[in-house]
Amino acid sequence: MYIGVDLGGTNIAAGIVNDSGEIMLEMSIPTLSERAADAIIDDIKSLILNLIKEFGLSKNEIKGIGIGIPGLADADGNVIHCVNLGWNDVPLTSKLKQEFDVPVFVDNDATVAALAENFCGAMRGAESGVLLTLGTGIGGGIVFGGKVYSGFNRVGSEIGHMVIGDNFYDCNCGKNGCLETFASSTAIIKYTKKLLEETNEESLIRDKINGDMGKLNAKIIFDCAKAGDSLAEKSVRRLVKYLAIGIENVISLIDPQVIAIGGGVSNAGQYLLDMVIKEVEKYKNYKELPIGKIVIAKLGNKAGIIGAAMLCK
Amino acid sequence: MYIGVDLGGTNIAAGIVNDSGEIMLEMSIPTLSERAADAIIDDIKSLILNLIKEFGLSKNEIKGIGIGIPGLADADGNVIHCVNLGWNDVPLTSKLKQEFDVPVFVDNDATVAALAENFCGAMRGAESGVLLTLGTGIGGGIVFGGKVYSGFNRVGSEIGHMVIGDNFYDCNCGKNGCLETFASSTAIIKYTKKLLEETNEESLIRDKINGDMGKLNAKIIFDCAKAGDSLAEKSVRRLVKYLAIGIENVISLIDPQVIAIGGGVSNAGQYLLDMVIKEVEKYKNYKELPIGKIVIAKLGNKAGIIGAAMLCK
Repeated sequence: MYIGVDLGGTNIAAGIVNDSGEIMLEMSIPTLSERAADAIIDDIKSLILNLIKEFGLSKNEIKGIGIGIPGLADADGNVIHCVNLGWNDVPLTSKLKQEFDVPVFVDNDATVAALAENFCGAMRGAESGVLLTLGTGIGGGIVFGGKVYSGFNRVGSEIGHMVIGDNFYDCNCGKNGCLETFASSTAIIKYTKKLLEETNEESLIRDKINGDMGKLNAKIIFDCAKAGDSLAEKSVRRLVKYLAIGIENVISLIDPQVIAIGGGVSNAGQYLLDMVIKEVEKYKNYKELPIGKIVIAKLGNKAGIIGAAMLCK
Repeated sequence: MYIGVDLGGTNIAAGIVNDSGEIMLEMSIPTLSERAADAIIDDIKSLILNLIKEFGLSKNEIKGIGIGIPGLADADGNVIHCVNLGWNDVPLTSKLKQEFDVPVFVDNDATVAALAENFCGAMRGAESGVLLTLGTGIGGGIVFGGKVYSGFNRVGSEIGHMVIGDNFYDCNCGKNGCLETFASSTAIIKYTKKLLEETNEESLIRDKINGDMGKLNAKIIFDCAKAGDSLAEKSVRRLVKYLAIGIENVISLIDPQVIAIGGGVSNAGQYLLDMVIKEVEKYKNYKELPIGKIVIAKLGNKAGIIGAAMLCK
């Protein structure tokens, strides 16, 4: 049995995961991220101890602990950056090892989600797989030969910050044209807001949000597009165009066997997938040759726990 | 001893290469690419036989034959595409095996050049390396753990066709914004021509080409920029900006240990390299973390023969 921890800005979810990647028991607590790192790490320890106790295991029956973080860790499991948590240089692995005498692994949340999807989800068994998580930002995870890949300096697989065009607003990272400024939920909200504000075009969206731009979200936009609303369709088509360019760039570089789309935006499901596949076909470098399969991720928010646990395998 | 063949649109160069990647003997003949594939393949066979004879070897003392092509081959050494040669579905490996009873490998020319630079050139010994060859187009080669990487369907490492922005002309491939439309010699010539035609700005370039746009080339533009010509500097700065975005995209995805810049444009040497390194720093996702080393390729046009031979190792 392995422990997988999904450390998020809002909640800490943890689970006992078996060799097949199944979650046998799961618990979750609020992160309360404004607290000091040590207080949060103490909560992670307690959460793991509770899981073990509740499941009727002893500490030494755990083969390892994996933790997915919304940030960057080095190979020794020190958290270098975690913007949402305000963490810099936090030795997460060594702090957990004070309590647990087992291997501890720390990696980026999108990276561990990719590992989960590769182990038992939408990219199951693929020799190479790339996951794009389209949420408020865009996370990227790369798996080669069943192992996560983050590059020589561990600054790779930042697929959301690949520059793919000129955009009307800059990315938080300071660059212009990052994939996440075109194809995240934030991106489609910003663009739709711009359309709503700059034109008088009739739109179902105006009724749904009742004049309150704060109510605008990706689900409303996709629902209105599915219902045939032309302003919403314009926003969705733009997201699809740039997501396809981003995916085609991934293919032009690393040509993985499978590319999975996850995160909140992927809740648009088959409707989104069909459009993306069609659009990617337009940008293929070799029209008659096969490219990797493009799929919707399967494991949802369980990918964090499962993938973190699978870091230990 | 290995045989490396660099099959180009203009010449076929081949060499006997030792275990250290040194060319012991080299010969070259014109490709005469308008001929049928079989005639060209017969010439390749003769060239190899001449090399072996001249060097005093027998056929069975050769450990393998590698061939770099300006196109795409499948894993069995069938040439799928070779635009310059007009080849489609040419079983190059099996045709050579009719004459030589040794392993035969075929791969893309930029890919084999990357292998050579990784084996004994500018990326020597790097765990992961990416070569960008900036010529009339942009070729890309990826080496992981000493082996070439082209992806699951072998359509990867096409780094020149990564979309990185909006451009004023479309790429030959049909897309807009490919790296090679910003940072190849063709790209800088096109942009400079545009500047010369659209403005009356004084420029050293006008004197050098004496009104004949056909004389414009990357060397003239770089030489004039080095001499402080402002129009030429503008062209070079644009190339540098987009090359840096392209390199930063490569880092954001695969974060290699070393990135080498080769091809004709790289003859601008340290002048170009210093600007590119400075520009890449601006686009880094993690300002204080290290990224891969950026260098100028070392092996020049010998990389084709050496890398092809090293496919056999």
